[in-house]
Amino acid sequence: MSRIEYRSKDILAFEQRYRAMFINSLGGFKSLSLIGTRSRSGQSNLAVFNSFVHIGANPPLFGFIIRPDSVERHTLNNILATRIFTVNHVREEFYQATHQTSARYPENISEFDATHLTEENLPGYYAPFVAESHVKIGASFRKKIDLELNGTIMILAEITYVSIPADTLMPDGFVDLEKAGTITCAGLDSYHRTERIARLTYARQDSLPKEIE
Amino acid sequence: MSRIEYRSKDILAFEQRYRAMFINSLGGFKSLSLIGTRSRSGQSNLAVFNSFVHIGANPPLFGFIIRPDSVERHTLNNILATRIFTVNHVREEFYQATHQTSARYPENISEFDATHLTEENLPGYYAPFVAESHVKIGASFRKKIDLELNGTIMILAEITYVSIPADTLMPDGFVDLEKAGTITCAGLDSYHRTERIARLTYARQDSLPKEIE
Repeated sequence: MSRIEYRSKDILAFEQRYRAMFINSLGGFKSLSLIGTRSRSGQSNLAVFNSFVHIGANPPLFGFIIRPDSVERHTLNNILATRIFTVNHVREEFYQATHQTSARYPENISEFDATHLTEENLPGYYAPFVAESHVKIGASFRKKIDLELNGTIMILAEITYVSIPADTLMPDGFVDLEKAGTITCAGLDSYHRTERIARLTYARQDSLPKEIE
Repeated sequence: MSRIEYRSKDILAFEQRYRAMFINSLGGFKSLSLIGTRSRSGQSNLAVFNSFVHIGANPPLFGFIIRPDSVERHTLNNILATRIFTVNHVREEFYQATHQTSARYPENISEFDATHLTEENLPGYYAPFVAESHVKIGASFRKKIDLELNGTIMILAEITYVSIPADTLMPDGFVDLEKAGTITCAGLDSYHRTERIARLTYARQDSLPKEIE
């Protein structure tokens, strides 16, 4: 197989947009979700994110990354002001609308209206959910961490609400995202459906993992 | 569609392993990679990770999460001691060996030996790569962040070396991971191949995204 190698000096010499495309590709397939927020004045906002990372199960915590100089600043401002937001998984049926939420709309335009996704409001949740999403998560802000190295911010939050299709929940607590229609993404702009290879049993030193039926 | 809803009190009342399985499922599909390290005494180590998150392209930075009380502590110790490690994408051909690296092997056993993955050493890199991997990344430790909320740690690192199959690099810098055979995972134990839906053009307020041929 013919291979290409790059070292630091090669990567740092890339043209800026080429390097962004290249480096964003290297992390593997990523989670894809729409984060819904609402400003104190009531304006809803929706933005695509691909940096959801599991932090812990007890309490149920996750994190995600925001670049404060980017289009995502409305999301950041609303989360810091209201301390509540939603995470909505993306299905193939609305992946183009999802991508379109990354356009730079002004603060007074809701990405729900601009992309024709449907705002869904649940009692007790100030932030809007995406009606078309099959896996919906409500989250409460817990902590903001400045990563400092390049000005990015990590938001840590607790999962306080989950709504999933009943037939995706397995007896052991596993939620079958493929059955829910959740898709994945790669790089800055590549969208992919998935096909399960297998689930494997818990790994132990003295035996090989088996497929879970 | 029949749906299930859970609120905080329901989630916190779940049995511990059930909750871990459930919460780990909710983040969507995840990156899947093997992190290779070597101790100061020369012992190689390999561990599966699914929390790679992009931090920035200039300089090329990423992060990942380590739970210090878990099997991943050898990885953490080696990274802090040597400040260098590798990230190797996983292909379907060795997903079972990848899963098996999460078993609790003692410190004096290399997961390369235990799982029959092949250690590959490159000039100038103290940490071992995985020969079977098609996408190989060399990384230098930059910062350790204690997330404090639950004792987890975030490692921030800079990409200092990349090796990819030549035919996966597109003219715009995009690396086609699906072509490279990189797979994805969900929850704690579910492995998936991907099938591209499309790449979409950069989102702009005044037009709809188009498919990139």
